[in-house]
Amino acid sequence: MPKSNEIEARWWGWGDINKTYEVEKRPTYVPFIEEKLDVEVEHVRTPDPDMSELELRESRLQSDAIDALKKIVGEDNVSTTRRDRVMHAIGRSYRDCLLARMGQIKHPPDAVIFPGSEDEVVELLKLAEDRSLAVTPFCGGSSVVGGVEPLDIEGFAGTLSVDLRRMDKVLRVDVESRTARIQAGIWGPELEDELAKFKVYLGHAPESFLYSGLGGWIASRGAGRQSTSYGKIEEMIESVRIVTPRGVIETRDVPASATGPDLDRIFCGSEGTLGIITEATMKVHPLPQAYDYRGQLFKTFEGGVQAVREILQHGLFPETIRISDDEESSMAMRVRRPSSNPTKEQAMQSALKGLSRLGWSFETGAFAILGCEGKKVDVAVRMKRMQAICRKNGAMPLGKGAGMEWFETRYDNPYLRDIMFGWGVMTDTLETATTWDNIMPLYHAVKKSIRGALADYDSRSMVTCHLSHSYVTGSSLYFIFLGKIARGREIEQWEHVKRTAGDTILANGGTITHHHGVGYEHAPWFEREYGPQGMELLRGMKKALDPAGIMNPGKLLP
Amino acid sequence: MPKSNEIEARWWGWGDINKTYEVEKRPTYVPFIEEKLDVEVEHVRTPDPDMSELELRESRLQSDAIDALKKIVGEDNVSTTRRDRVMHAIGRSYRDCLLARMGQIKHPPDAVIFPGSEDEVVELLKLAEDRSLAVTPFCGGSSVVGGVEPLDIEGFAGTLSVDLRRMDKVLRVDVESRTARIQAGIWGPELEDELAKFKVYLGHAPESFLYSGLGGWIASRGAGRQSTSYGKIEEMIESVRIVTPRGVIETRDVPASATGPDLDRIFCGSEGTLGIITEATMKVHPLPQAYDYRGQLFKTFEGGVQAVREILQHGLFPETIRISDDEESSMAMRVRRPSSNPTKEQAMQSALKGLSRLGWSFETGAFAILGCEGKKVDVAVRMKRMQAICRKNGAMPLGKGAGMEWFETRYDNPYLRDIMFGWGVMTDTLETATTWDNIMPLYHAVKKSIRGALADYDSRSMVTCHLSHSYVTGSSLYFIFLGKIARGREIEQWEHVKRTAGDTILANGGTITHHHGVGYEHAPWFEREYGPQGMELLRGMKKALDPAGIMNPGKLLP
Repeated sequence: MPKSNEIEARWWGWGDINKTYEVEKRPTYVPFIEEKLDVEVEHVRTPDPDMSELELRESRLQSDAIDALKKIVGEDNVSTTRRDRVMHAIGRSYRDCLLARMGQIKHPPDAVIFPGSEDEVVELLKLAEDRSLAVTPFCGGSSVVGGVEPLDIEGFAGTLSVDLRRMDKVLRVDVESRTARIQAGIWGPELEDELAKFKVYLGHAPESFLYSGLGGWIASRGAGRQSTSYGKIEEMIESVRIVTPRGVIETRDVPASATGPDLDRIFCGSEGTLGIITEATMKVHPLPQAYDYRGQLFKTFEGGVQAVREILQHGLFPETIRISDDEESSMAMRVRRPSSNPTKEQAMQSALKGLSRLGWSFETGAFAILGCEGKKVDVAVRMKRMQAICRKNGAMPLGKGAGMEWFETRYDNPYLRDIMFGWGVMTDTLETATTWDNIMPLYHAVKKSIRGALADYDSRSMVTCHLSHSYVTGSSLYFIFLGKIARGREIEQWEHVKRTAGDTILANGGTITHHHGVGYEHAPWFEREYGPQGMELLRGMKKALDPAGIMNPGKLLP
Repeated sequence: MPKSNEIEARWWGWGDINKTYEVEKRPTYVPFIEEKLDVEVEHVRTPDPDMSELELRESRLQSDAIDALKKIVGEDNVSTTRRDRVMHAIGRSYRDCLLARMGQIKHPPDAVIFPGSEDEVVELLKLAEDRSLAVTPFCGGSSVVGGVEPLDIEGFAGTLSVDLRRMDKVLRVDVESRTARIQAGIWGPELEDELAKFKVYLGHAPESFLYSGLGGWIASRGAGRQSTSYGKIEEMIESVRIVTPRGVIETRDVPASATGPDLDRIFCGSEGTLGIITEATMKVHPLPQAYDYRGQLFKTFEGGVQAVREILQHGLFPETIRISDDEESSMAMRVRRPSSNPTKEQAMQSALKGLSRLGWSFETGAFAILGCEGKKVDVAVRMKRMQAICRKNGAMPLGKGAGMEWFETRYDNPYLRDIMFGWGVMTDTLETATTWDNIMPLYHAVKKSIRGALADYDSRSMVTCHLSHSYVTGSSLYFIFLGKIARGREIEQWEHVKRTAGDTILANGGTITHHHGVGYEHAPWFEREYGPQGMELLRGMKKALDPAGIMNPGKLLP
């Protein structure tokens, strides 16, 4: 089986070119979108853009620079091919995909480098500093905030994308201490496969899991689907190793320390601006014996939110807990793939009708996923207690079928975005976090702001939200919004929505990002959230480790 | 009742001048120490040093500087009295207390300032920068690493100790989100008393709890006795507010974020070198309904360590879990206060003898404390499961009496140190942390090194250790060592032991401190652990926020 990074990837959209979202098998979705957004979907699939038609700036590197790079990493590991440069030119934000479809790949790296060892990374940064080349670290390239785009910044002779995929080993597993030493370039599926050989696993599964890797997760301070129990990536780090232009920093493999400001937490979230993370020791868990994912339907979103808060504050930490609001719940029902067994499907539909008469509806209620993993007994005990709390807050259990349906399709949504582009429908996501007392006010404010911003461009809209990644003191809120693309003003429209939503989040007590990161798309709000003194601090750190400023310029710091 | 910071405090030792360790009521302790350390304890109590006999450098501040300070904080809140200057001249490390007893208060601040608001702190730092005054933030003053000593550093016209005790309010409790906004100058007892009015509590109770406060806990990245479930102080922080010489930084009250390097974690552990923490929002818990503390006696320390690892890795997080090795267990028995009921005491002694014949002995085994707090049902369930794991690993339950005895005397030990000074006995502590696979090797290495270092000064020794503050991936190890003070070479002797132990910890994979902090006593090892690039990073941060270097100079950074 090929590795996950050996697939042929879509250069203008998500994932594997041979995979897609089977929208044809979901008959209620297209009419739903047409009605809600006032669009006409003429062709369910539009032809893919052609890479050979792209106008691409030539590599600015002279042959002596290429030779010097090859001397460090070997002949085969310096690439200036069109495909490699395009694949490393953008991440996978709405803006990225929009520009790619419009043929505007503005910042292809001048070369893509594939180092095979940390020593090579050290040499690469020396060379880059000597020759004024900007360096953007690259792991899976799935950033949705512009984190991997090698921006053209004045003063640099060229840009390098340093792709870590060759540094992809699990170096050591310490089963007794439940830690694993892992190279940063390994992607999700191979990472868990390797760990599984030792009967342990990491449990970090963001939506990008199939096409992203350890270094990127750490650099962008991400969160996986099971973060409610396993924590965000920063909580999984035992120690880290990073190559900076001033040398290597390695923290100690210790469970906790009081030695000054926590270096692990400084590099986590540094987004390649201080150096290239090459290895980390991560906390791992025993491979779960049991998985239990179940659907629940709350009468109201508020009821679901209340249930999640109670579950967390009772000290129950489900691996996954996710409550969709009414708009997301109704969309989930419309995008559903009906059962291939018509009798079964009919039974389900009439059950839903019955439920609806009793007050539980996907149109007005909140569909929830509750997921537990681990030892059988523990999973059973937690699930029972959580279901009781859900019931108390107005939930109707929908059983394991609904849970597994979600589980099995949990990495598919980004493919749907690509299809909807062809329909003239914009889909983007944004996320924040706040304390419990502020969840509902922030929720309403953000939804309203996005709706208004899309209306400004004469678009009807769907703005859905779910609560996920929850904590004792608060939770993340995740928004997905759909609108009609404003032809000829595509970027302007997106910028308007993004700006409106970002301003609303900050004005209403949220953080500009709970797990997507900053990159350059969130940089303006990051600066406001961090504050002028925070930015000074960041500049001070950068000056200390990267005085020439070669590391991922234009990210985090404007 | 007076506040905890309104007591008359010992200037040369621990705590309240009206409290002491009732060594007279513990008849087996003095003979034990005499035998083990080859000392003769002639007088159980030696007279207290007299503050008026201290030779104290005069304040170097001119009257115009004093006037300017008074203009900011008010007439009554600038002190140059002997008592205030002495009380703010040192922390409470062995070295501090030794020098105080020897009459060597080397670095009294030139003035002690008691600001009443953040605005005053801002003004103070401006004035300090203008007049080249070094500023050392002060909360409880219980640092055991030299963190609060206002060192004389070249280039400064004088030193200020900024005592935050007037900024001691709980500003807001959000019961729904389980957070509380608290001013940094509040001390442990008042903090918990205030929170208790809202039926919540913080649960951070270091040994210094009675004489330390929030700002110090955060600045030094400490851990409390119940950190195994509630976490170290850094894990309790929701947001923080800090006054730096370049202005105020406030982080957002959000449960998690991906906005760059985590500022909360940068200020936690900054030890006053970047600014003065003025407020923080802390995670709080419901006031426990039930407390269950129990003693256990393991046949071996290894068995106890194994039990703790299993307990944690089974996902059970007792608030307190603490396993003493054989030397500490036997000392615990000798320092015990016998029951006032002779029949009861006799019964206990013969029970112990019986246990000893069966292989459970305080001389060779490991005394453990297991403590759970919370809801009654939850406490009962956890305790039952933990006891089963202990039993499997060779433990004999000693019941609640032994647990409560430990609980009730848990803040008393520092008083005993002061008494033993008078006996010519040095007592100091040090602590580290490592992963489970390295716990026993590190344990043996450190014990051996301290024993050897004390032998170098012709001293017999007791080197005790307990495992506490445990994690899924590892644990802290806490060492207490006793030796005969080398008269005339007191400091040299201590430095030798400290150096030997510190070198051993770093050479054997530990961290130089798990919760005491760095100050200047750990600075040499901190520098090695952080590495040259880490130190550059720290200098870069300091330069950004404190370009004149007025904030606690000589701490963290040499």
